[in-house]
Amino acid sequence: MLQATENLIAYASLGAVAPEYHIFARPPAALKLESGETLGPVTLAYETYGSLNQDKSNAILICHALSGDAHAAGIHDGEGNPGWWDDMIGPGKAFDTKRYFIICANVIGGCKGSTGPSSVDPQTGKPYALAFPFITIADMVNAQRDLIDHLGIGKLLCVAGGSMGGMQTLQWASSYPERVRAAIPIATALKHSPQQIAFNEVVRQAIMADPDWRGGNYYAYGQPEKGLAVARMIGHITFMSDQSMEEKFSRRLKSGKFSFKFDADFEVEGYLRYRGDSFVKRFDANSYLYITKAMDYFDLSGARLIQTGKVCPTRFLVISFASDWLYPSSQSQEIVRSLKRHQVDATYCELKSTYGHDAFLVEIAEQTNLIRHFLDRTQNGNGKKS
Amino acid sequence: MLQATENLIAYASLGAVAPEYHIFARPPAALKLESGETLGPVTLAYETYGSLNQDKSNAILICHALSGDAHAAGIHDGEGNPGWWDDMIGPGKAFDTKRYFIICANVIGGCKGSTGPSSVDPQTGKPYALAFPFITIADMVNAQRDLIDHLGIGKLLCVAGGSMGGMQTLQWASSYPERVRAAIPIATALKHSPQQIAFNEVVRQAIMADPDWRGGNYYAYGQPEKGLAVARMIGHITFMSDQSMEEKFSRRLKSGKFSFKFDADFEVEGYLRYRGDSFVKRFDANSYLYITKAMDYFDLSGARLIQTGKVCPTRFLVISFASDWLYPSSQSQEIVRSLKRHQVDATYCELKSTYGHDAFLVEIAEQTNLIRHFLDRTQNGNGKKS
Repeated sequence: MLQATENLIAYASLGAVAPEYHIFARPPAALKLESGETLGPVTLAYETYGSLNQDKSNAILICHALSGDAHAAGIHDGEGNPGWWDDMIGPGKAFDTKRYFIICANVIGGCKGSTGPSSVDPQTGKPYALAFPFITIADMVNAQRDLIDHLGIGKLLCVAGGSMGGMQTLQWASSYPERVRAAIPIATALKHSPQQIAFNEVVRQAIMADPDWRGGNYYAYGQPEKGLAVARMIGHITFMSDQSMEEKFSRRLKSGKFSFKFDADFEVEGYLRYRGDSFVKRFDANSYLYITKAMDYFDLSGARLIQTGKVCPTRFLVISFASDWLYPSSQSQEIVRSLKRHQVDATYCELKSTYGHDAFLVEIAEQTNLIRHFLDRTQNGNGKKS
Repeated sequence: MLQATENLIAYASLGAVAPEYHIFARPPAALKLESGETLGPVTLAYETYGSLNQDKSNAILICHALSGDAHAAGIHDGEGNPGWWDDMIGPGKAFDTKRYFIICANVIGGCKGSTGPSSVDPQTGKPYALAFPFITIADMVNAQRDLIDHLGIGKLLCVAGGSMGGMQTLQWASSYPERVRAAIPIATALKHSPQQIAFNEVVRQAIMADPDWRGGNYYAYGQPEKGLAVARMIGHITFMSDQSMEEKFSRRLKSGKFSFKFDADFEVEGYLRYRGDSFVKRFDANSYLYITKAMDYFDLSGARLIQTGKVCPTRFLVISFASDWLYPSSQSQEIVRSLKRHQVDATYCELKSTYGHDAFLVEIAEQTNLIRHFLDRTQNGNGKKS
C-alpha cells in the first residue's frame, strides 16, 4: 500500500501549469473587509489542475500557508521548482486530478499575484505599502468565494489546507457551510495561542526594526533584507522539531572546527542563514506583516466555528502531527471537540512524524491514504450528505 | 512544610550587599583561554553572603545564567531590586547564609563588572568590542577558580546554578572534580541541541542585523537597541511555556479591541516589547553575542563530563522542570545517565511546574526542600565522601 502510494508521487506529474487572474470588486464595487475598510479592485492569482465535471461537483479548493502561493502543483515554464504541494496534487495522488478539479489561489494580502501591500494602489499609482487595509482570514475566504462564484461552482467538494491554509478551511466551513461538502484542516488551530502570537510579534518586530523597512515604504529602495531574513529564521525554527533538527544537523560543524568568530560554525546555523537569505528574494516584507497579523486575529473558538443551533452539513477530516509544537495536536483536538459539540461529522487523526510543523508538506504517504479515502467517501460513499 | 518554606522567603532578607572585585592575570601573566588566546588583566565582580567558617568547608559557588550577574541576593544600596536568586539565598533559605558562605561572580565576557567586550582594552584604551577574545564555559570556570583560590578555599561544598549556570556547574565537576563536593545543575544540558543553537543564532543575527551594532563598535554611539530588543523577545518566548503564557496573557487585548494597526494588540505583545526595551538598558549587546556562543560551544557529552577511568568524588543533584521546553527534562536525564555510567552519586528530580525554563527562578518551595536536604547530607550525612 505504501509502495503503491509512493509510486504515485511522481515529480511534477502535472507538467507545465500557468497562473490565471480573476479581477473583481472593480470600482465603484469593492470588497468589504472585516476592519470596516474596503479593497478594490482585487486581483486573485490562481491555478487549476484537472477538469471541472459537468455538474461542477468535483471542485476542491486548496488553501496555502503563510508564505505559500497559488502554485500548488506542476511546474511553471522555465522554472525548475514544482508547486508547494506537488506531492499531494496530480494524477493518482491524494488530490487526484484524474477525478477532481483542484483550485489554489494566492491570498489577498499576499505578494504572488494577488492584491497585497506590494500591489499598486490605483488611487496613488504607487505600491499600497501600509496604506493597504488590514485583512483577516475571513476576508481572504470572502475573496476566494468570489473566485468560486466566477468559476460557476455552487458547492465545493472539499476545502483543504495546512497551517494558515487550515485556518482558511475552517473559515470556509464557518462562513459558507452550505457551500463546502468536506473540509480538511491540517496542522492548524481555532485560534492562535499567546505563544503563537508571540512568535509572530517577534517576526514583525524583526522586520520593522530594520531601518530599510522605512515605515513600510521601501519599494523604491529594496526589501528590508536583514530584518526579513531574521524573521524567516525564527519561522524556520518553529517549523521544524527538535528531533528533525537533530536528525538533519545534530551538532555537525561546517568546517570541522570552531571558528572562534561569529561565523556560522554549526550546519544548523548555515541552514538558517541560507533560508533567511533566500526568503528575502521571494517574499514581500509587508505581506509577512499583514498575513501574520491576520493569523493572530483569527479566532473561531466558542460558537464562531459552528453557530449555535445551526446544522453544519460539512464533514471534517482533522489531521495533526505528533512532533508539531507550533500547532500542537491539542489544538487540532480542540477543533474536533468544537465540531463534536455541534454534532458535526468529524474524523481526527494524529500522524506520527518527526518533521514538526513542516510535516504537512512532507508526510505524503500517510496523508494520501487518509485524504484519498475521505474524499472517496465524500463523493461516493456513506459520507454523501447532499 | 510548604508553609514553613514560604515563610522563609522574606524579601531581600540579607539586607544591603555590595560587589567586590578580584583582579588577576595582570601582565605579564594572563588567563589562557580554550581558543588559544589569552586575556589579562581580568576583573571578576563578585558578591558573598554569609561567613566562611574556620576550616573553609562551607563555601558554595552560585553560577548565573546568560543575562545574570554577581548580584544573586540582597539589595544594593539605593536600588530597589533584590538579587536574581534572592528567594533562594539568605538566612534560612535553600542556600542558608546562617550555615553557608555563598559566592556569586559575574562571568568573564559579561557586562556587570567582570571583564567583557564592553571593558576597556588596556592595549588601546578603548572598549574591546570584537577584539575581545572568544570565551567558553571552561574559561568562565577557570576564571572563577582563580577567585576561589584567592579566597583561600580549597574545596567548595557545592557549585550550583540554572541554565548556563548549570553548564558552569557541570564544567566545575569536569575540570576540578576534587574541588567540588557537590554539584546542583538545574534546567541545563551537557550540550546544546541544534534547536538551542538555532535560537541563539537567530538572537545573534537579530543583534548583528541592526546597523547600530556597527560591527561591534557601537560604544561611542549607544547600543543596537532595536536588534537587541528583538533578540531578547525571542529569548523570553523560549523562557516561558505555552501554558504559562496562556495563564498570564491568554488572548487578552490591551485596549479591548483590535487596532487594525501594527500596534501591540495583545497583552503578550506588549509584555514582549516591554521586556525587550528594558533589556537594552541593562545588558551589553556584544556580551550577549559572546556568551551565547560560549553556550553553543559547550559540550560535555561522551567522556568529557567524567573522564573514563577517573573516579568522580562529586555528588550530584540534577533538577529539571516538566514544562521547560528550552532545556527539556530529557537533557537532564542525559546528564544523569552520563553520571551513572561513571558510577557517580547522582539524584535526579523533575519538578512539576508550568513556568517553563523560568521555573528555576520562580519555583522556590520545591527547589528549597530538595536543595536544603541535599546540602545537609553533603555536609553532615551519609553523602560525606571526603
